[in-house]
Amino acid sequence: MIARGKFIVFDGPDGSGKGTQLARLEQWLGENGRSTVRAKDPGGTEIGDRIRHVLLGHDLAQMAPRCEALLFMASRAQLVREIVEPALNTGKIVLGDRFISSTCAYQVAAGFPREQVIALGNFAVGSTWPHLTIVLDVPPEVGFERTGRKPHHVSRRGGTGQLSMFDDAEPDAMERRPLDFHRRVRQLFLELPSAYPTPVAVIDGARPADAVFADVLQTVQRALG
Amino acid sequence: MIARGKFIVFDGPDGSGKGTQLARLEQWLGENGRSTVRAKDPGGTEIGDRIRHVLLGHDLAQMAPRCEALLFMASRAQLVREIVEPALNTGKIVLGDRFISSTCAYQVAAGFPREQVIALGNFAVGSTWPHLTIVLDVPPEVGFERTGRKPHHVSRRGGTGQLSMFDDAEPDAMERRPLDFHRRVRQLFLELPSAYPTPVAVIDGARPADAVFADVLQTVQRALG
Repeated sequence: MIARGKFIVFDGPDGSGKGTQLARLEQWLGENGRSTVRAKDPGGTEIGDRIRHVLLGHDLAQMAPRCEALLFMASRAQLVREIVEPALNTGKIVLGDRFISSTCAYQVAAGFPREQVIALGNFAVGSTWPHLTIVLDVPPEVGFERTGRKPHHVSRRGGTGQLSMFDDAEPDAMERRPLDFHRRVRQLFLELPSAYPTPVAVIDGARPADAVFADVLQTVQRALG
Repeated sequence: MIARGKFIVFDGPDGSGKGTQLARLEQWLGENGRSTVRAKDPGGTEIGDRIRHVLLGHDLAQMAPRCEALLFMASRAQLVREIVEPALNTGKIVLGDRFISSTCAYQVAAGFPREQVIALGNFAVGSTWPHLTIVLDVPPEVGFERTGRKPHHVSRRGGTGQLSMFDDAEPDAMERRPLDFHRRVRQLFLELPSAYPTPVAVIDGARPADAVFADVLQTVQRALG
């Protein structure tokens, strides 16, 4: 009998080092004989990529915030069914790049009640919440400096700001939000350990990557038992 | 001050006469000096049409049922925000072709708890539920005879059957379900008056269109006050 795998998600603002740390952990796990699978959110499946394209449409300035939230959740429902659950069932470690935790920051910062986001998440993924979510915490200024982006003081659209979740989005398709919005997003990420249904660890991501990874590894080793 | 409009939805299985009755009512309302707007579900907006295309994708045999449900709801969130609410605010009568009531039949027949569908609907449309939903009731055999389609005994895909909601879907993109499934769908439509958050009237749609429309008109006149 194969032991069930683990689902570990990296989250945090753009420029917090999620991609770097995920790749390092992936390599470390591989060197230590563990099979891993990546789960990119939103997207990560053919259907999810189609949903992502709807979200990224350049002329979608009028997308209703609730529509946006439901599309993110639809992508996750597919990701969990198609990628995460089969991998866990064969004992693999799934490494997620963003997940419902992002909606608990961006959409809640934009005004949705957090308990509604959690309820939607329950519908979308059932019991397949991450075993561990690692939030990489950086001040907005550090994230913007690393990504070479600056927040604007006027939002171009009526959405909820969650399009800043797209690390590879074209700048002109990306949500621009005042700095205050990003400070609120950071605060909501910091509140996640007591607000999320499954364990969340916050790690200071403003330090050099080696120091961050030492903490990531310690946290993951504790979670893997 | 303009009196707020009304949102009237036609629902029922394919072949129940929704399109015919909606067009008749639209004409009658126009002749009686009322402005109307159509609200097609799923779709009805540019974003909704994109979502509809994701739902209709021919190679999407693996769409998770929860993903499908969330996509339908995303389309409705957009429809309500972009079409229904502005029309109601200017005193128009919105005529809907399917809505959350369809998910209460097809997805519930496929196994979702009805209260989850209602909760999702609440998230998607807020307080903008229809003032009146008219369910046109026909036995599955009548619907199939009218549309020239037959249910198959083996489902081609893992979805929930809600793709039969697409009246103009290509037959090979359409869900094929055993007759028992469609009987369950009919039963769920018949239960809607006591299970839906807002008023539902069931009208026997198996009769000639004139007789059906007489009942539709009486029901609508009562609802419009």
